[in-house]
Parts: sequence; C-alpha cells; structure tokens
Amino acid sequence: MILRHSESVTRQAMTMPGAKNVAMQLLCGPGDGCPNFAMRKFTVAPGGETPKHQHDYEHEVYILAGDGVAFGNGAENAVHAGDSMYVPANELHQFRNTGAEPLVFICLVPAFVHQAGGPAAAAPPQAVDCSK
Amino acid sequence: MILRHSESVTRQAMTMPGAKNVAMQLLCGPGDGCPNFAMRKFTVAPGGETPKHQHDYEHEVYILAGDGVAFGNGAENAVHAGDSMYVPANELHQFRNTGAEPLVFICLVPAFVHQAGGPAAAAPPQAVDCSK
Repeated sequence: MILRHSESVTRQAMTMPGAKNVAMQLLCGPGDGCPNFAMRKFTVAPGGETPKHQHDYEHEVYILAGDGVAFGNGAENAVHAGDSMYVPANELHQFRNTGAEPLVFICLVPAFVHQAGGPAAAAPPQAVDCSK
Repeated sequence: MILRHSESVTRQAMTMPGAKNVAMQLLCGPGDGCPNFAMRKFTVAPGGETPKHQHDYEHEVYILAGDGVAFGNGAENAVHAGDSMYVPANELHQFRNTGAEPLVFICLVPAFVHQAGGPAAAAPPQAVDCSK
C-alpha cells in the first residue's frame, strides 16, 4: 500500500493552453505501479478554469469542495461538493470555478495518459504557487 | 456527461463476510458506460469495518471524511480526510472507522469488478439503513 496525504504531493500548474489558475497533483500514477488508472487532484482557484477541450479517453470526477460549472452535453451544469461525473471519451468539457473558494476535485484517467509518451506525461513540475 | 449528486445514489450494504456497517454507492460503473474503471463511495459507520481481505485487482482510494485505520503493508496505518492510497492487487487490506463520525472514501476498481459476472456484480441493493 502506498499511503500519502494529498497536501504533501507536488502541485503542477496545468499547462494546457487556455488553463487559468489550475493546479494538478498526481496522487497515483504509473510511477507508483498503478496499472489501470491514474488519480489526480485538481484545484481551480476562484475565477480559474480548465480549457474547453476533448480527448480520446474518459474522465471520472468527484467534486471535493467548492462551487463551479462543468461544461458537458453541450451545456453548463452547476456542480458542488459531492457531485460525481462521468465524461466519456471525445466529449467537449470544461471545469470553471464560479465561487469564492477553491474548486477542488478528483479526476481519474486511464493510466496511459501519464505513462511515458502519454498525453500528460510531459507536463513538468513547475515552481508556480497554485495555492492562491 | 453523466452528472449526479452522490447523495442521490442508492446505498448498498457491503455483503462480503466480515463487513460491519459498510455502505457502498456505485457512482460510475459499467451501466453508465464507464469503460475502464468503476468509482464507488464507501461509508463506514463509527465502529464499522470492511473485512480484512485481498483480491487480484487493485484499489485507488481517497479519504473524504472521518478518521480510521487502513491495514496494508502488514500494519495498521492511521488515515484521515485528504489521504490517498494505492492498494496493489493481492495485498491484504482493511478499512476500519476509529472515529466518532462516518469514515467516507472513494474507492476505484477496474470496471470488470462490476461487470456482469464480475466479483461485485452480484451484490444486490438491500433495504438496510446504512446512514447510521
């Protein structure tokens, strides 16, 4: 068992074009031996947002804290702590913080996304203070 | 996108022998089309516990609330909200609530676990009040 407190995990600024004040923490990834899926924790600062984007793999999301809007099914949907989402592959989606507190969520993806050569593997840790 | 509030999802009593006051909610499973992994939310009442068990697939866990003990690596480990865990396949593990409030966590497994014929597919919804 690998046990870690998420606050001890390095925050990386989300580098995808269009991302605004989004930090990602890789809680479980290929480096841990996780064979099938990777667990990430995202923190979107007030006023921040992920880009509206799509890709050929799915998300499973659980909102931990905050208030925001999830774009999906071609519309904006209000989301709050305790909401879960399944975003199928190739669906256009976005997460936007509309509240005064950080919007925090867990987002799972297939493990290959973070494996060497995968679409997110190249995102380097950056010395950016994402806690504000 | 399938969006649901987790409180609206049916609670099923965990029926594995040795489980005590454990409720499971399937937030995303094969019935939703999730192709690779299933997201479940577990609530362990104060004094409750999952059985000490092992199986040939992994868990990825995120503690949402409460205080407890996770057995893993042959020892008991204190866990609290914000902790994440990777439990490899075939490792003996257990979650036990040692606090006064519910121990609540997200636990991901490969999708086949909840597919027809999979090890958890047969668990029927039960009319048990697991909220206490």
